[in-house]
Amino acid sequence: MKQTKLAAGISLRRTVAEGNAAQLAAVKEIIQQVRASGDQALHEYTAKWDGVELDSLRVNQTEIDEAVARFDPQLLEDLKEAAANIRSYHESQKQEGYKNEKADGSYVAQRVTAIGSAGLYVPGGTAAYPSSVLMNVIPAQVAGVRRIVITSPPGKDGALSDGVLAAAHILGVVEVYKVGGAQAIAALAYGTETIQAVDKITGPGNVFVALAKREVYGDVAIDMIAGPSEIAVIADDTAFADEVAADLLSQAEHDPMASAILLTTSEQLADAVSKEIDRQLETLPRQSIAAQAIQEHGMIYIGEMMGELIRAANELAPEHLEIIAADAEAAAEKIENAGAIFIGRYSSEPVGDYFAGTNHVLPTNSTARFSSALSVYDFIKRTSVVYYSEQAWHNNEAKIARLARLEGLEGHARAVESRSWEKGN
Amino acid sequence: MKQTKLAAGISLRRTVAEGNAAQLAAVKEIIQQVRASGDQALHEYTAKWDGVELDSLRVNQTEIDEAVARFDPQLLEDLKEAAANIRSYHESQKQEGYKNEKADGSYVAQRVTAIGSAGLYVPGGTAAYPSSVLMNVIPAQVAGVRRIVITSPPGKDGALSDGVLAAAHILGVVEVYKVGGAQAIAALAYGTETIQAVDKITGPGNVFVALAKREVYGDVAIDMIAGPSEIAVIADDTAFADEVAADLLSQAEHDPMASAILLTTSEQLADAVSKEIDRQLETLPRQSIAAQAIQEHGMIYIGEMMGELIRAANELAPEHLEIIAADAEAAAEKIENAGAIFIGRYSSEPVGDYFAGTNHVLPTNSTARFSSALSVYDFIKRTSVVYYSEQAWHNNEAKIARLARLEGLEGHARAVESRSWEKGN
Repeated sequence: MKQTKLAAGISLRRTVAEGNAAQLAAVKEIIQQVRASGDQALHEYTAKWDGVELDSLRVNQTEIDEAVARFDPQLLEDLKEAAANIRSYHESQKQEGYKNEKADGSYVAQRVTAIGSAGLYVPGGTAAYPSSVLMNVIPAQVAGVRRIVITSPPGKDGALSDGVLAAAHILGVVEVYKVGGAQAIAALAYGTETIQAVDKITGPGNVFVALAKREVYGDVAIDMIAGPSEIAVIADDTAFADEVAADLLSQAEHDPMASAILLTTSEQLADAVSKEIDRQLETLPRQSIAAQAIQEHGMIYIGEMMGELIRAANELAPEHLEIIAADAEAAAEKIENAGAIFIGRYSSEPVGDYFAGTNHVLPTNSTARFSSALSVYDFIKRTSVVYYSEQAWHNNEAKIARLARLEGLEGHARAVESRSWEKGN
Repeated sequence: MKQTKLAAGISLRRTVAEGNAAQLAAVKEIIQQVRASGDQALHEYTAKWDGVELDSLRVNQTEIDEAVARFDPQLLEDLKEAAANIRSYHESQKQEGYKNEKADGSYVAQRVTAIGSAGLYVPGGTAAYPSSVLMNVIPAQVAGVRRIVITSPPGKDGALSDGVLAAAHILGVVEVYKVGGAQAIAALAYGTETIQAVDKITGPGNVFVALAKREVYGDVAIDMIAGPSEIAVIADDTAFADEVAADLLSQAEHDPMASAILLTTSEQLADAVSKEIDRQLETLPRQSIAAQAIQEHGMIYIGEMMGELIRAANELAPEHLEIIAADAEAAAEKIENAGAIFIGRYSSEPVGDYFAGTNHVLPTNSTARFSSALSVYDFIKRTSVVYYSEQAWHNNEAKIARLARLEGLEGHARAVESRSWEKGN
């Protein structure tokens, strides 16, 4: 793994380009076709990209029941326990409205309601991700979203994976479609004969999915544009090199574009982690992916002091940040920009991917500077409420009219002035 | 004003197209030039579009002081009172983190921190909007954003309006730039020699500003893509036609593309409002704008029952919704989709634009289905924290490893399994 010293002037910001012009053109064409031809376009693209001719786009209850029956009962229990942890963490995000009343009888209030419908994209392909089903559906359920839809690309056999269907079953989601790629995003955004449009689309996906989400943004809400996975580890000489290396590889194995960064005060640890990476790579099933990620997007930064590492982490704003160091909690308090922080050696990043309860849909590409994990807040909306009593109007109408006229908006001033007590009595 | 009966099959969804291909090409060119040439590009575009050669892009303290000294003291008091109301409403949006501990010593937590910097775009041109300064800056301040920047296009005299500078002064904002249009958005997103890049851009603007915000979205956070203003009024026969008409016109005067919708159970009110609109238009200074908006985007829908009007309003998801009817509060409870609701005849919409305390930056184009007013939540981010004790790791490592292997991610499983009690003791 490459090493360098942390120094002023090194930029740690990460910006991974999101597709190219040809891919964007393809996505625009797909969206247009789905808007024009609906289900027919979905069937055609599914035949073309997933290599399967589907009779029905929707997964029927028999398919779900059979998938659950086939599924390893131990894993079903594991998924249920993970779901309970995730639900518990997200329950704390439930938000209440508020109402601030004044002596003049007026009030201003904020009402919180769930969005009406949400569509969750679950990637398929080389691996299926039941954990993504949990991480996207549960916050929507806790928020109170009435209609939750899952869509995922079918395998060559025309089916979704048992794990994805089992996860949907555990959560009670019954509206599941076998559509993937940009065509799935288009269907969720604009609707087809079979798939009714949703209000918000969430979930990760490949570059076509990411580009399609950006295209439909505004007509429908989206969670975020997910980039390749990232991990940064802050570690001092109390850390075990084999554990740090294993954690770096756990994200590197996601994607050749994934980033794995070690920030350390210990040159000895740096060297040991480098050796461990090479050693562990030898037997890793996803060796070629992980090796490419480490080669191209891996880096060990060596700093003089913990404060330097923290500054670097805040500039990097990584998706996942582990802190394995003396007084890790104090260091974590100083982190402002990170999707999720994992404290201490037992908090290996996959603990959060699967089980602890926090959400694994996290901001990438240094966007943790301004964005956050997927959450219940993503599935609610807030409506302001204004009630002015006659007294409140009487006390304030002249001020409001003056402010309106300051901005050249005479119609605003006249609207407020049009009220009069006499008329109503 | 046009009238029609509410009926099944009428779609009330609003989607105003956002610019055309030529405008988008111009915006892309501007962004590229600003990224390439920085301040020089800003000076050139300001000369070209605002017709003024600036010595300095930044407003200096003397300019601010002089503007405040010239500004009407009564209006300064009005702005201060409005600011206090806005601050009070937004203080209730402050969010705390939480920490959920388990008996095994583990915890999951959510930390809330402010984003580092925010750039507020304030439109200039025909009118200047001090109220926009209040509505954008105050939520950022309540959130705790350290660096707040205002940028607004200069007039032909090379100055910003006294009102905008007075509002900035009241709030203690000192970093103010004389840059408008897409070039301002590009500068805020990518930085120039004079203007350091920010983490989030908020504020309304014309079509070039809207297109530029969409272009930079992802590299920087944005609040929303604001469309033309919208008002819907639900009214029954208890409403006064002149007041309803004045309120409809107050939004119509913003923009020829603004929308003004009356939903009523009373044909008598419908006719009376139509007549009042014509009468009031005669003397409205912004008559031509408002008349065009009413003509092209105004509509009176007549329904049989209040329930029908409520369903229609929920489909419309208007930016502003007034309810002037018997039992308006009960009706408001049934509204799920609206940016802001104004209850009763004294809660004329401009009350919220300027003074009540709620935010006037609101979702348009039917996006209130899934988005909300600008708020403190827009200026914070949440970081998840996971701490696993040795006991928690021991209890759960096998489950986590099984879930990782289910997804084909052996590296994740090995990371969790790499920990061992013996090594650490």
